[in-house]
Amino acid sequence: MARTTPELIAAKRDGHALSSDDIAQLIAGFVRGDVADYQMTAFAMAVFFRGMSPEETVALTLAMRDSGTVVDLSDIPARKVDKHSTGGVGDKVSLALAPMVAACGVAVPMISGRGLGHTGGTLDKLEAIPGFSVDLSIARFRELVRDVGTCMIGQTAELAPADKRLYALRDVTATVESIPLIVASILSKKLAEGIDGLVLDVKFGSGAFMKTPEQARALARNLVDVARGGGKDCVAWLTRMDRPLGRTVGNALETIEAFELLHGRGPDDLREVTLTLGASMLVMGRVAADEAVARAMLLAAVADGSAAKVARAMVAAQGGDPRAVDDPAVFPAAPLRVPFRAAATGTLLTIDTHAVGIAGVEMGAGRARTTDTIDPAVGFVFERNVGDKVSTGDAIAWVHARDEASAARAIERLTRAVGVGEGAAEEVPLVLERVG
Amino acid sequence: MARTTPELIAAKRDGHALSSDDIAQLIAGFVRGDVADYQMTAFAMAVFFRGMSPEETVALTLAMRDSGTVVDLSDIPARKVDKHSTGGVGDKVSLALAPMVAACGVAVPMISGRGLGHTGGTLDKLEAIPGFSVDLSIARFRELVRDVGTCMIGQTAELAPADKRLYALRDVTATVESIPLIVASILSKKLAEGIDGLVLDVKFGSGAFMKTPEQARALARNLVDVARGGGKDCVAWLTRMDRPLGRTVGNALETIEAFELLHGRGPDDLREVTLTLGASMLVMGRVAADEAVARAMLLAAVADGSAAKVARAMVAAQGGDPRAVDDPAVFPAAPLRVPFRAAATGTLLTIDTHAVGIAGVEMGAGRARTTDTIDPAVGFVFERNVGDKVSTGDAIAWVHARDEASAARAIERLTRAVGVGEGAAEEVPLVLERVG
Repeated sequence: MARTTPELIAAKRDGHALSSDDIAQLIAGFVRGDVADYQMTAFAMAVFFRGMSPEETVALTLAMRDSGTVVDLSDIPARKVDKHSTGGVGDKVSLALAPMVAACGVAVPMISGRGLGHTGGTLDKLEAIPGFSVDLSIARFRELVRDVGTCMIGQTAELAPADKRLYALRDVTATVESIPLIVASILSKKLAEGIDGLVLDVKFGSGAFMKTPEQARALARNLVDVARGGGKDCVAWLTRMDRPLGRTVGNALETIEAFELLHGRGPDDLREVTLTLGASMLVMGRVAADEAVARAMLLAAVADGSAAKVARAMVAAQGGDPRAVDDPAVFPAAPLRVPFRAAATGTLLTIDTHAVGIAGVEMGAGRARTTDTIDPAVGFVFERNVGDKVSTGDAIAWVHARDEASAARAIERLTRAVGVGEGAAEEVPLVLERVG
Repeated sequence: MARTTPELIAAKRDGHALSSDDIAQLIAGFVRGDVADYQMTAFAMAVFFRGMSPEETVALTLAMRDSGTVVDLSDIPARKVDKHSTGGVGDKVSLALAPMVAACGVAVPMISGRGLGHTGGTLDKLEAIPGFSVDLSIARFRELVRDVGTCMIGQTAELAPADKRLYALRDVTATVESIPLIVASILSKKLAEGIDGLVLDVKFGSGAFMKTPEQARALARNLVDVARGGGKDCVAWLTRMDRPLGRTVGNALETIEAFELLHGRGPDDLREVTLTLGASMLVMGRVAADEAVARAMLLAAVADGSAAKVARAMVAAQGGDPRAVDDPAVFPAAPLRVPFRAAATGTLLTIDTHAVGIAGVEMGAGRARTTDTIDPAVGFVFERNVGDKVSTGDAIAWVHARDEASAARAIERLTRAVGVGEGAAEEVPLVLERVG
């Protein structure tokens, strides 16, 4: 006999495992409205304290996936592999990665999010391209994945609506920070995309949700296990987020920087993370026997221009100006560029990456609330990074701002966010390890 | 600066103490609608796991008290003392206690609840008296406390509305079983009554919310400390609820049995609990120097008829037939009386008192849901109790039922609820100890 909602909440509260049927009943009831929001948040708080077994997390993920449309891409002969990052500051990897991987013969159906809080979002970066639309129908999405090899859209109301509603509630009830709820939220959407496999970039450090490698490892392990429990190939990479990735923060600046990779330019750290994730995607997509071969294929796709060609095709198909892939002048630019200068001489020891993200949000590069609007032009270009020597007066970064006042506020925040001192910065590996 | 609601929930979730201002802000926001139900239930679940300090519980209690009217009885010269029981099966103490205490010169303003689940409620028992109304205005309540010495009404919308709303949410979110939330719920209403002091009957055993003396002691300690923190005199008694109190279960049957006490009759256990609680009320009401004197006064008020006289006056003033105090024939009676007979010979070792309560609910003596209606006539009269010898075929109880089918179902439940066997029943003291 099915248990009542209070009985299910009590079972979780008391540390008993719920069955797949229990969880399916709860989520189906939530979507129908039989399970009230105030019951779902009490349940979420009980999960915060009690956790969930891998089996429970799989059941929650699948129940949320099944709350909406599950895209069927089975008529596309290529393997379908997506990438997901747990989010960070300056993380523009997807914009270069998807065309590079698609150029190598693996389809990349990518349903992404918007930025909220200190982290940016792929959709906001794409929308810095004049004309680019992320609001395509599922039918059009399927066409582009088939014909172009990749397509990048936003979460539609049809995909995992239970996740969308639950996330909105978690956001205002202090129940975001729960690994099973995070895992189910991420994977319910990804499992609804029609993919065969998923490569995860789980970040750790001051700009990441997970501050330590241990936390990131635990999240990665959970994500990989649950994705596999949901019938998908999955591996995760732990990568550092103790400083911005690449040199830029801000939507147009980041998109320009990502497209640099497609021309064989761009910063080393961004290239390395992109190649690491991309290589796993090619292996998972069964077009490369191992990661060494896969890396060579990705570099070849850049060298022969095929990656840039896919990028142009994707941008054009989604209504954007395809010259954006090659010409930074296509993007909106901020009227003001003001240097953020070092106040002391020494080594750049630390960057509070979360604070850098917040400084960007305050300028308009991100959102404090979901209803905030984005200014695509503003942001930062870093000249120095953690470990670099600086002298008083050196430009550590350039602030691209809408006006003097916002530039001044950003510089004040950046001043507090960087630590310059004696000695060497702590060595943190860019790519720490693979999980799964 | 005031913290946001998610910040307050997160603070409790992470085990940090909230200030009185934090808690007042939360409850005031809840009453205004700024704090959503789904936030309040997440908070309640966090309290379930993290508990509350005595200071926090006092703050919560006072904030909920102050969400509505606080009755002012200061123009009544007598000390005002109420009694509250944590609830059990057959607990009809208030009906005899209030007139006895009032007859001795202590005013008893009593705002009671209805039965829900396996436990009965004072209001339902009073309504078994033809014509009796528990829905009086606060103004009329004040008049009767002053003129009659006692008045028994239900919780009005004016008193502690935050508690009423929060309780309704807790009931469907598995957040009832939290000592600070229980304490604040009980005491916010009691502190709104305009009393000087409160005597608590905290029950333990199979028919009580607290199954063990240890749990009951912890609840009693909390209740006493928080009531005192709220500026009231308070003591608690731990009394057993491993069997029905008195011989009857059911609204008319229990009211008749309680009124027996006012005539010097009735079962010993019911009299003893009533005298124990009443003696504390007289001492707290400063009309008796100690409990021995107080007991003698209560017995004298029974012997000289003054307790019964107060009861008649109260019943009449609340619209009921005052002959009910003296004549059981005034009450509705069930058409059917069917014996529940012992199936074996031996000692009556245990009664699953919770199951007895549920058997009563199923017959119509109580409510499974707040919207269920009560049949005042139905219930049980026990002939034997825990520790008594029984022989196969002896009537352990009489089932007063509306029809054969409900009687048969009740007998089936009672059969499973009693344990007859060899040896002696465990000795459990009726009144275990005083707390505070």
